[in-house]
Amino acid sequence: MTHRLSRRTERLTSSLIRDILQITQRPGVISFAGGLPAEELMPELDFGACAADSRQYGPSEGEPALRELIARGLSGLGLRCQVEQVLVTTGSQQGIDLVGKLFIDEGTPVLLESPTYLAALQCFRVYGAEFHGLPLQAEGIDPDALKTAIVRHRPAFVYLIPSFQNPSGCCYTDGARRAVAAVLDETGTPLVEDDPYRDLVYTSCDRTPVCAYLERAPWIYLGSFSKITAPGLRVGYLASSPALFPWLVRLKQSSDLHTGRTGQAWLTRFLASSDFGKHMAHMNGVYADRRDTMQAALDRHFNGLAEWSAPAGGLFFWLRLVENIDTLAALKVALNHDVAFMPGELFFPVAEQRYPALRLNFSHATPDKIERGIALLSKVLGECAATAID
Amino acid sequence: MTHRLSRRTERLTSSLIRDILQITQRPGVISFAGGLPAEELMPELDFGACAADSRQYGPSEGEPALRELIARGLSGLGLRCQVEQVLVTTGSQQGIDLVGKLFIDEGTPVLLESPTYLAALQCFRVYGAEFHGLPLQAEGIDPDALKTAIVRHRPAFVYLIPSFQNPSGCCYTDGARRAVAAVLDETGTPLVEDDPYRDLVYTSCDRTPVCAYLERAPWIYLGSFSKITAPGLRVGYLASSPALFPWLVRLKQSSDLHTGRTGQAWLTRFLASSDFGKHMAHMNGVYADRRDTMQAALDRHFNGLAEWSAPAGGLFFWLRLVENIDTLAALKVALNHDVAFMPGELFFPVAEQRYPALRLNFSHATPDKIERGIALLSKVLGECAATAID
Repeated sequence: MTHRLSRRTERLTSSLIRDILQITQRPGVISFAGGLPAEELMPELDFGACAADSRQYGPSEGEPALRELIARGLSGLGLRCQVEQVLVTTGSQQGIDLVGKLFIDEGTPVLLESPTYLAALQCFRVYGAEFHGLPLQAEGIDPDALKTAIVRHRPAFVYLIPSFQNPSGCCYTDGARRAVAAVLDETGTPLVEDDPYRDLVYTSCDRTPVCAYLERAPWIYLGSFSKITAPGLRVGYLASSPALFPWLVRLKQSSDLHTGRTGQAWLTRFLASSDFGKHMAHMNGVYADRRDTMQAALDRHFNGLAEWSAPAGGLFFWLRLVENIDTLAALKVALNHDVAFMPGELFFPVAEQRYPALRLNFSHATPDKIERGIALLSKVLGECAATAID
Repeated sequence: MTHRLSRRTERLTSSLIRDILQITQRPGVISFAGGLPAEELMPELDFGACAADSRQYGPSEGEPALRELIARGLSGLGLRCQVEQVLVTTGSQQGIDLVGKLFIDEGTPVLLESPTYLAALQCFRVYGAEFHGLPLQAEGIDPDALKTAIVRHRPAFVYLIPSFQNPSGCCYTDGARRAVAAVLDETGTPLVEDDPYRDLVYTSCDRTPVCAYLERAPWIYLGSFSKITAPGLRVGYLASSPALFPWLVRLKQSSDLHTGRTGQAWLTRFLASSDFGKHMAHMNGVYADRRDTMQAALDRHFNGLAEWSAPAGGLFFWLRLVENIDTLAALKVALNHDVAFMPGELFFPVAEQRYPALRLNFSHATPDKIERGIALLSKVLGECAATAID
């Protein structure tokens, strides 16, 4: 018996990562692999009065009060954003999926940072995107390289994570943000700005959304509550320039009608309360300590093995390895030692731009586990380096 | 400035229905248009202890305890279904979207009942499906016509709603179910069985899932909690034959990582409690009364205007109009009289099979509104019929 599936399914990548992440949930494994917030820091979900009005079907665009709060927040960041341009999504991942649905046919060219967010690559690939990578530098992508790539590839959109980028931790300079916006405006190229880490900041730095600097290019801004509250709620959002918005709402409706209402109601109350500010200050304090703990451990154990810089915010260290180590093979060895990381090669949109690297999450493990895990990992990688074939 | 969107967006139908449904929310409008459950009958959402364990990211497949309950329920209906074959979805609409993602490329042939669920048509159309309709009769679709259509069109799958079909209310006879299953098995054609109304039953009737009669054809069974608990939670599910399941999980993960955990936790507790049975008995009692109220009102006001039969379950009456009335135009007139219905023509997969019809929901309006609304509607349609051009 044969039955045929869509061509889309041929582009679904293997379940390797799913398998890895499942192994990391084994008790005793120190995992730097996922992008998990620390559960012990998450706010209590006290639904109380939220539940009663959340039972019936709701609007596809999201709950009006939550959209209002989001629009106010984005306006405060400099975006020209009315409440009518805000769409609540079932997590930020759904925002990425809607971007794929909106823009991508088989062979549609897309420009992205190299490296970039693994799950965005997977999602866009399923829709048939043809990737072109923009190498990331310390200050962001190079605006001239962006312009050259736009002229050459005529992408349907450019996907960027300018603040505490995943996986690199890079935070674009204000100059780079303005220069990138100018190129997008000049060429009329749509920008998809993914910004889930903006509020996880430990060392103050410029992070005006690139969308806020756009004058005429279409834009979609993706935001998340997962990293700052509780990802289990699955509530994120997007805002877009007005012309794109009606398409996104209809695609959203076709995807799941609307996002769960209880989580939206709880978030509306929590974000407007004084608890939210206290929660953020506490969480960022703890995460800053964990970042510093990992930085100190890396200094002790990874000198000579890798190059990195401490991220000013977000959830990740990005280690560029000195030796040409096969990081997927190294991960298998590491798992035998009960420590996990994300192999860097998965984050590159095109093979030619790859270099050996690791992504290490510092938000989830406690400081003593960070110390032990980094020591373990350096041993594993030291051994892999000794047997590496260049 | 031009920017190009995917070809998918060209197939997004107009927002007419969205606009209509928004008008029906105007105070004072008696709406038979949507498929809304009655809010006053929904169970209290008492999250209590559910919230604490629902904060972190969860599994893409869904919460193990809920999957277990679902698998047990489906096994009880005769499906060969292990817990490993159950995927929790963000409402049943997401199940439909995943089916589209899994099977449909541009031009992929799909067989469906004629008429069938509007939102499934819209969703499959966006992915590029080419529709072929199987006319519905009182006992279901004709198995011989199904076989002829399969041989002729070689569809990627057949989409059916055998129990209390939307919009027609039809419940396939057991003979039709077995005969349809035999044709699907013989031809190895995948079945997508959408079954959100199965537990809304007012007059007992056979409703073994067609999937339960399949011996070798691949299958996906779509289930919903929206109609029996609270749609605002956005929790539905699917189960599938083993070979299709890994694809569906990966597409789900790419769509929104996983479904919100709080709703899943609440449902797990509620479905396992004795409250659930009491709730269903009460709700079905009220809905049966409303069905009977609408039937009596139709008998008084629609004789000579339309033909129909009282549905044994589900949420809808389907009225086949005697005169060739333009139901979209009639809806505009009806809205001026503060009464709303769904125009039948939207539910047909192909234009040639269309006939003038209305879909009337009976679960949402109270009995006195049903009586008043049906009387109003008959006047509107009587006037439209008088001016109808045949």
